[in-house]
Amino acid sequence: MLMQAENHSGQAQLKRGNRMAIIRQLRVQPGQSRVDLANALGLTKSTVSALARELIDEGWLVEREVLITGDIGRRPTPLFVDPTRLLLLGTQVGIGHVRVVLTSLTGEVLSAQSAAYDTSLDVEACIQELTHTMLDVAAECGEAQRIIGIGVGLPGGVDQARDQLVFAPHVHWHQAPFGTLLREALHGTPLSGVPVFMQNDADVAALGETEFNPSPTTDPLLLVLVGEGVGAGLVVGGRLLTGARGLAGEVGHMVLQIDGPLCSCGRRGCAEALIGNRALLQQDGAAQDAPAVARAGRYLGVLLQNLAVAYDPACIVLGGPAVALGDALLAPVRETLQQYAQAARLPEPTLRVSRFGADAIAVGAAALAGYRLTQPTLA
Amino acid sequence: MLMQAENHSGQAQLKRGNRMAIIRQLRVQPGQSRVDLANALGLTKSTVSALARELIDEGWLVEREVLITGDIGRRPTPLFVDPTRLLLLGTQVGIGHVRVVLTSLTGEVLSAQSAAYDTSLDVEACIQELTHTMLDVAAECGEAQRIIGIGVGLPGGVDQARDQLVFAPHVHWHQAPFGTLLREALHGTPLSGVPVFMQNDADVAALGETEFNPSPTTDPLLLVLVGEGVGAGLVVGGRLLTGARGLAGEVGHMVLQIDGPLCSCGRRGCAEALIGNRALLQQDGAAQDAPAVARAGRYLGVLLQNLAVAYDPACIVLGGPAVALGDALLAPVRETLQQYAQAARLPEPTLRVSRFGADAIAVGAAALAGYRLTQPTLA
Repeated sequence: MLMQAENHSGQAQLKRGNRMAIIRQLRVQPGQSRVDLANALGLTKSTVSALARELIDEGWLVEREVLITGDIGRRPTPLFVDPTRLLLLGTQVGIGHVRVVLTSLTGEVLSAQSAAYDTSLDVEACIQELTHTMLDVAAECGEAQRIIGIGVGLPGGVDQARDQLVFAPHVHWHQAPFGTLLREALHGTPLSGVPVFMQNDADVAALGETEFNPSPTTDPLLLVLVGEGVGAGLVVGGRLLTGARGLAGEVGHMVLQIDGPLCSCGRRGCAEALIGNRALLQQDGAAQDAPAVARAGRYLGVLLQNLAVAYDPACIVLGGPAVALGDALLAPVRETLQQYAQAARLPEPTLRVSRFGADAIAVGAAALAGYRLTQPTLA
Repeated sequence: MLMQAENHSGQAQLKRGNRMAIIRQLRVQPGQSRVDLANALGLTKSTVSALARELIDEGWLVEREVLITGDIGRRPTPLFVDPTRLLLLGTQVGIGHVRVVLTSLTGEVLSAQSAAYDTSLDVEACIQELTHTMLDVAAECGEAQRIIGIGVGLPGGVDQARDQLVFAPHVHWHQAPFGTLLREALHGTPLSGVPVFMQNDADVAALGETEFNPSPTTDPLLLVLVGEGVGAGLVVGGRLLTGARGLAGEVGHMVLQIDGPLCSCGRRGCAEALIGNRALLQQDGAAQDAPAVARAGRYLGVLLQNLAVAYDPACIVLGGPAVALGDALLAPVRETLQQYAQAARLPEPTLRVSRFGADAIAVGAAALAGYRLTQPTLA
């Protein structure tokens, strides 16, 4: 009996893998027919037809009208990921504020809301505010719609194996079981039992760029967030690089100036101390003068040059509040990258600003939920 | 007819994937039985039995004797990757010398040989010397043995999609079709038609550590080579991080000292200029004095601290000729890592020296061939 159960579970896993492969294929190439999918995935047409029927019934996929042309007659029905029925809830936990967005499976933002929380209190205070905001936003969900996943982007390293926020220095949370606490807070609400996924804020922002607009020309994609802290997320072949303990991409603590200014982490000369808010803002929160911003921009250029040689990304995306400084910050970044590239007679790395602006982390968190829900095996 | 061919190719791919999954499973957990394999891989026992028979007949796997115990009677037959019949040829292309090793599928070195080549000549001069050495070593292959793959570790970035050595600064090779040239040179020899795979030297050295001794406790594994140049290879979940153009891990060109000494690449203050041979050796090749080596060691410590936060490896492995300097170099590396870790109140990264010593690249190149041959889909 045990053997049989294990073989069944192997078959269930295979079926899940095939279902998810169909969804992922349609995200990369929307409008493929059942025959296209069968050919692309090495499955029989009858397998694809049966799975597509299930996925349409459940709300994952939708058929669009068929075009009739004189030349080739009735074309096979094109399939798309359905942007109307199944929804994702994405949440940014920032320093002193939360941001919640409701998105379609394809990344359209349908509703959004922010709230403040007191960083001098413990993690439960944040979760209480977050829960209220999430329920408010979820109430925008229509009759025929259903939220199937919740993603959370956190300002620190996340150990997925232990479902734990390892360390968030700017809010002083250590080893916090954030996911468990949030699931408990949602118990008995309309969001009770909806799967909750969490990850570092830069990681989810990187997933937002790749999941909601997959393109082989941006693989690997490196996203660098600059704000209170400095962090990076790398997506390679559709997968996040998270590292042994969920701390990969903590590039704010790469040393750029040996024996430089003291960083929040205790080390000296880290990128964060030279580029983050403390370098960009005065005590009262007003922007620093232009030379200070330009200096931070040059250090950011050095950091990006170092990350370009370490990761060899096809594309670097900048996000976070510092991007709002515009060319005062970005012009020296580009100049520095250009100087290093010219010295080495290499092409400059491709650099652009995040497509989701101030919502990069919240939308990215929704992308995380979609990403985890459509993995071939549900970890 | 087209449809049918495509479905057949899908099935062939599935079969290859299952065969390779069995081999990979037995590398991680040697001695599993057919029932163990069926359970672990979600396959039926009859599928595993049929594939195992094929793999035994072809020389990939071997059955070992069954232990009889009073308690549980005859135990299922344990299977192992066969270390005797199918062999791999691994090649290091160094600066002015080549090194060739013959290994088993499990990494035992059966034969090895080195030769010099003139770096002032073009890439063909190197390939000629390499071909002779490879054929000499291949002649050690026994009657019942067969070389099934050739791996080459090159001193520069490799673009696998274009089968091209992008740039090897220390030998001045640009855009060299190294694989094609080597395949042509081997035409008509006993190695004619054997698949040739090539990759950056630090990348193959990293694969040598993971492929020939897989362990979840060293995932991700970062290998850093220090010699003429400085490079790194990262293996995550059994896969190499190669980047958009095969240049990921070119960490010798991360800037550690803004406006520092001029590097071979044209930039200033790169790790290579502060840590590589020019920092460690005098003009005549003799070792620098102790303070110069210690200074290079401290810079290597800063580089490793930066790589630790960028990649979050479970383990950092040091390789390359500089490792032979021993504690004169390694003690300041460890001290520097310790100081940064203490400042940030974090555990130090785990650091050790490559298990294959001076053969790290050649054995790693053999590992590359084994790795590529046992991928679920042969790219």
